[in-house]
Order: sequence, then C-alpha cells, then structure tokens
Amino acid sequence: MPDLRRGNLLSALPRGGAVELVEVLAQGAGARIERIVSTGQVSPPGFWYDQPEDEFVVVLAGSAVLRFEGGDRRFDLRPGDWLEIPAHVRHRVEFTQADPPTVWLAVHGDITGTILAGA
Amino acid sequence: MPDLRRGNLLSALPRGGAVELVEVLAQGAGARIERIVSTGQVSPPGFWYDQPEDEFVVVLAGSAVLRFEGGDRRFDLRPGDWLEIPAHVRHRVEFTQADPPTVWLAVHGDITGTILAGA
Repeated sequence: MPDLRRGNLLSALPRGGAVELVEVLAQGAGARIERIVSTGQVSPPGFWYDQPEDEFVVVLAGSAVLRFEGGDRRFDLRPGDWLEIPAHVRHRVEFTQADPPTVWLAVHGDITGTILAGA
Repeated sequence: MPDLRRGNLLSALPRGGAVELVEVLAQGAGARIERIVSTGQVSPPGFWYDQPEDEFVVVLAGSAVLRFEGGDRRFDLRPGDWLEIPAHVRHRVEFTQADPPTVWLAVHGDITGTILAGA
C-alpha cells in the first residue's frame, strides 16, 4: 500500500504571521480541500469574494466573522460552525482571531447541486 | 440573498445511540460532504470498505482507529487528524470512542487526481 497523505489540522500553527497560511490538502477533478490558518487577516476594504465555485467552510479553532453582501448579513463563526457558500454569493472576511490562530477547513467545488433534506 | 445552509459540527450529538448518525451536509456533482457521529460502532468482522470514490476524512472530536488491509497498517486518529483514502484502498473501522461521541467530517469525490507538493 502506498503511503497515505495525512496530517493534523490543529498542529504546526503559525503565531501572528503577517500572511494567511493556505495549504491544499487534497485536490482532484471534483473538489479542492484546503486548511487555512488566519492570524488576524481580514478582507481589504471594499473587497468581496465572488467565487466561481461553491465553498463549504468550517471553523475548527479560533473565531471569525463573515459578512455577506445580500441583506448585509453577518455570521459569527466559532469552532464547529460550518457554512455553505454557493458560487457567486458575495462575501468578505470581517474578522479573524489572531492568537490562538483561527483554523478553517474549506472545500471548493460543485458541492451544492443536489437538493438535501432540510435545505 | 437566500438563506445559507449552516450548522455546527459539534452540537446536537447523540449519546450512546445504537447506530451511527450520518448527515449529508452538502452534495453536488463534485463531492459529498458528511458529518458522521460514531458512538462505539466498528466495522463488522471481516468487512472492508472498498469505495469507488476517494475520501478525505478528519476526526473532530473523540477518537478512532482505522485499519488498512495493505500492509495491515493502523492509524489512531485524534481531534484534528486527517487522512486521505484513495478509491479502492481497502480499510475498516476498528474502534470509535462512544462517550463523548466521535465526530468525523468526510468528503467523498474525485479529490486525489492532482499531484500536490509533499505528496
């Protein structure tokens, strides 16, 4: 059996780095999975993400605030909180906890096409 | 803006249920994202998962042991530990912590086609 790719999402965290750390953990034709470690970074003034793909994001440590343009809604995210962001739903990062850092797991791809119970 | 699907992976946990709780959080053509809550369940004797799709799995709470047929390797998984399981790599669940429950996030799809640094 070949070695399996593996790691720990909560270890090897930077402390107070100037830039966000983005690591691609897995990627194929279907989706890309990233660990993102934020240490206080926020979206630049006036900037909105407008992504061509859906995103599923969960905060695993720290805390963050996401803001959405439509309806000007804000979500405070704590460990375990997840959110599905369909493609082209404009949003920005208003806050990330710096220390201890904020750890996100993000999945990018076509992940919203199927109607789910409770949708 | 339509309501966004969201939740918390660590809340509404069953305690000591007889069956594993599997919830599909997001699904599209590219990938399916599930929360799985295990309360002591393991794979039946002699059973091996042989999945047609790749899987990325991370333990968020509790602990678990996965065993792989090739080389008879075992991995103890603690919170934050992730593992990429390519399609058709045969494996089984040997242990899951029952109380507090073991919480997994699993992504199924074509997620291993791209060569990554450190692969």
